[in-house]
Amino acid sequence: MDPADIIEEHVADVAIIGAGLAGLMAARVIAAAGRSVVVLEARGRVGGKTYTRLAADGTPIDLGGQWIGPTQDHIEALALDLGLKTFPTYDTGENIEIRQGERHQYTGAIPTADPQVAMATVEMLLELNLMAQQVPLATPWTAHDAASWDAQTVQHWMESHVQDSAVRILLTQVVRAVFSVEPRDLSLLHFLFYVHSAGNLNQLVSVTRGAQERRFYEGAQTLANRIADALGDRVLLDAPVRMISQDDMGVRIDAGDTLVTAQRAILAMAPTLAGRIRYHPPLPARRDQLTQRMPMGTVIKVQCLYPTAFWRAAGLSGQVLSDEDALGLTFDNSPPSGQPGILLGFMEGDAGRQWSDSDPATRRALVLTTLEKFFGPAAAIPTEYFEQIWAREEFSRGGYAGFMPPGVWTSFGADLLTPCGRLHWAGTETSPIWNGYMEGAIRSGERAADEVLAALT
Amino acid sequence: MDPADIIEEHVADVAIIGAGLAGLMAARVIAAAGRSVVVLEARGRVGGKTYTRLAADGTPIDLGGQWIGPTQDHIEALALDLGLKTFPTYDTGENIEIRQGERHQYTGAIPTADPQVAMATVEMLLELNLMAQQVPLATPWTAHDAASWDAQTVQHWMESHVQDSAVRILLTQVVRAVFSVEPRDLSLLHFLFYVHSAGNLNQLVSVTRGAQERRFYEGAQTLANRIADALGDRVLLDAPVRMISQDDMGVRIDAGDTLVTAQRAILAMAPTLAGRIRYHPPLPARRDQLTQRMPMGTVIKVQCLYPTAFWRAAGLSGQVLSDEDALGLTFDNSPPSGQPGILLGFMEGDAGRQWSDSDPATRRALVLTTLEKFFGPAAAIPTEYFEQIWAREEFSRGGYAGFMPPGVWTSFGADLLTPCGRLHWAGTETSPIWNGYMEGAIRSGERAADEVLAALT
Repeated sequence: MDPADIIEEHVADVAIIGAGLAGLMAARVIAAAGRSVVVLEARGRVGGKTYTRLAADGTPIDLGGQWIGPTQDHIEALALDLGLKTFPTYDTGENIEIRQGERHQYTGAIPTADPQVAMATVEMLLELNLMAQQVPLATPWTAHDAASWDAQTVQHWMESHVQDSAVRILLTQVVRAVFSVEPRDLSLLHFLFYVHSAGNLNQLVSVTRGAQERRFYEGAQTLANRIADALGDRVLLDAPVRMISQDDMGVRIDAGDTLVTAQRAILAMAPTLAGRIRYHPPLPARRDQLTQRMPMGTVIKVQCLYPTAFWRAAGLSGQVLSDEDALGLTFDNSPPSGQPGILLGFMEGDAGRQWSDSDPATRRALVLTTLEKFFGPAAAIPTEYFEQIWAREEFSRGGYAGFMPPGVWTSFGADLLTPCGRLHWAGTETSPIWNGYMEGAIRSGERAADEVLAALT
Repeated sequence: MDPADIIEEHVADVAIIGAGLAGLMAARVIAAAGRSVVVLEARGRVGGKTYTRLAADGTPIDLGGQWIGPTQDHIEALALDLGLKTFPTYDTGENIEIRQGERHQYTGAIPTADPQVAMATVEMLLELNLMAQQVPLATPWTAHDAASWDAQTVQHWMESHVQDSAVRILLTQVVRAVFSVEPRDLSLLHFLFYVHSAGNLNQLVSVTRGAQERRFYEGAQTLANRIADALGDRVLLDAPVRMISQDDMGVRIDAGDTLVTAQRAILAMAPTLAGRIRYHPPLPARRDQLTQRMPMGTVIKVQCLYPTAFWRAAGLSGQVLSDEDALGLTFDNSPPSGQPGILLGFMEGDAGRQWSDSDPATRRALVLTTLEKFFGPAAAIPTEYFEQIWAREEFSRGGYAGFMPPGVWTSFGADLLTPCGRLHWAGTETSPIWNGYMEGAIRSGERAADEVLAALT
């Protein structure tokens, strides 16, 4: 058999690797500018860490990124272009806090019913917000206190600046909810950068007027699906890239039985995944070492469907924040009609690490027991159960995003965006605005596309 | 053309990936036990981060690992078996310290001529040694203070426990010399584990009676070369592995035009490199996430040859410790005869990061200017110049070894050694004794071989 029979060759101005929101947005911008583009995607689907499946009754279930909120203007504009509409996240009724062995119900953005703790929490949030404002978004390592902030973990800052143990637990829960890591994992500088990148902490953690404000009627993956549909056969699925070569003439992408040659390439994936591709010539030392230093968080997203959102009748919002359960955070994730009722739970950081590799039956039983504890016996009998273990996805290997341990911004920050010859970097980790979110992914794709368009001959 | 013509297939009891000291030692033990073994090596040579080249006059020049010292019993025994002899590192005369703008000469293991600083340094070393002794080598995360030590960087510990700025600089220099990273990069728990793993800090940093005590007459790579010679055609070079599959029957290793099937496999490489291989089925979440969390240090090793070791006549040992130069640490690396005279310099941590990607002429000029500053005009005119930029080596991507930022031991420590089905892990990063050293690599190979031998049918 002649190898030419089985190898598919493509030529384009730009090759894009990764058909998540970043890569697809870059492709959309490049195609709109009249340049040719090919997108290579390792999976059999587009969307990356947005992934929508349908329940038996057709309800879209978002297994990945799903929320948008105020100031996320680029995803808003994209959705408008694509004709996709959003509805408000259910945020009515009382929330449940389980902390230090006690259970209370509360309302409002500060997740506690204890006024003392609430006050101390507000003070801490104010302090962190003020610090965050001092981090320049494009160059976090130039912050006045960058050397000190990047030499300590969030855990260590907390231990020296937060006295009240309930407030410490609250900040730990915020870190888990926002990063899917533990406070000991994270550079304080990265935490502050991320907060500033989203506006402030209140915006990050809030539902109404925050990052969890609205959802897409048809599911968040629809954004990627619509862009990919328009690109048509310019998107190649099931094409995991194993080698990228470049020389004075251009770039050559080897994805096994698919070869693409282009003037430039955009790698639209988390840095740790970009580090797993072979490059010829090999990447510069600094860029390669950066890919060794931005691990992914660890999150499992589970959803249980019920005939109705029965907790609403009990005056509950469906939101729980617990410091003693593997499911540390839940939401009401029902469609606008409230039918089916859907409870969404996250296992983040340590919990994600503990349960990602366990057997499915054990994990499911744990989820149901926990939801029963939160919401009563009805929660133990879902009609359908969905789970997504992002750290087990070969082409994501964690979520919500790549993060920086101490020292990385200081030594390697500039390498996050610097092109390596004909290779340009996209992905939400490269965005100064809404880093880690769908909004950041889209912005990064636009920025990388602009970079490449300016460089094309 | 029939694919069968170009694909080389091997069958063995055990496949080993990586022909550094860990992989070769494992192969040696397995072969000695009468089981069949195949070693796949990505490079065109064996030895991994030991690499010996010859100067024009035939003098062996070690571009990688080179020293052995007391308590490194396994490498000692291996060298004896292989008939390789060592000689003492030149450690006579005065050392130079350049710190906080001043230059002094000193003798002894505490690198300062200032008695006040020396006393404070001794106190700090004692404290760190005492802490290190409390870290259980096989399970560092079970240390009494593990939670606190793994939540802070060495930098942060230093800022809260070391008052004297000269002593802080000294500890920074120790971290660079031992890990090739900056104190802000490193988990305090990992630092303490590593110290305990080597015995104590004094042993780590000393020449005589320490980890830099002796060198191999024929160069350190000779260890690997001799083992590989004995294994003969069981070692396959230029065979970078891209996919490892396992099922109930065995393991299948795909290295492009070489295929190996075996009962079990040993991956004898740094975790970050093991993470770059594809696995079918994919690695468990925890193991994969561990590979995202153990980056390599950053070191450049340069050597300049001169007709004689001219600094000896001036009463100098050739050892310099500088806080203001890219070459922060030098040694006399001459052969026993003293001819040629060889100065060895390291660029570590930030300096390694800054200079790894610069153009060769600039880097060389910087090295010569610096050596001239240290040792006078004669140092500016070497007869030969060698440099090795470990972070640019595609199949090492840094050195001396993989290290742990905060949080990693706590969450992923147990995954460092846990086999994944038929896959076993070797490499110096897995050794509880002399982790990061050639001794640790050899011990890890022996341990992995024992594991596999016990599991073979």
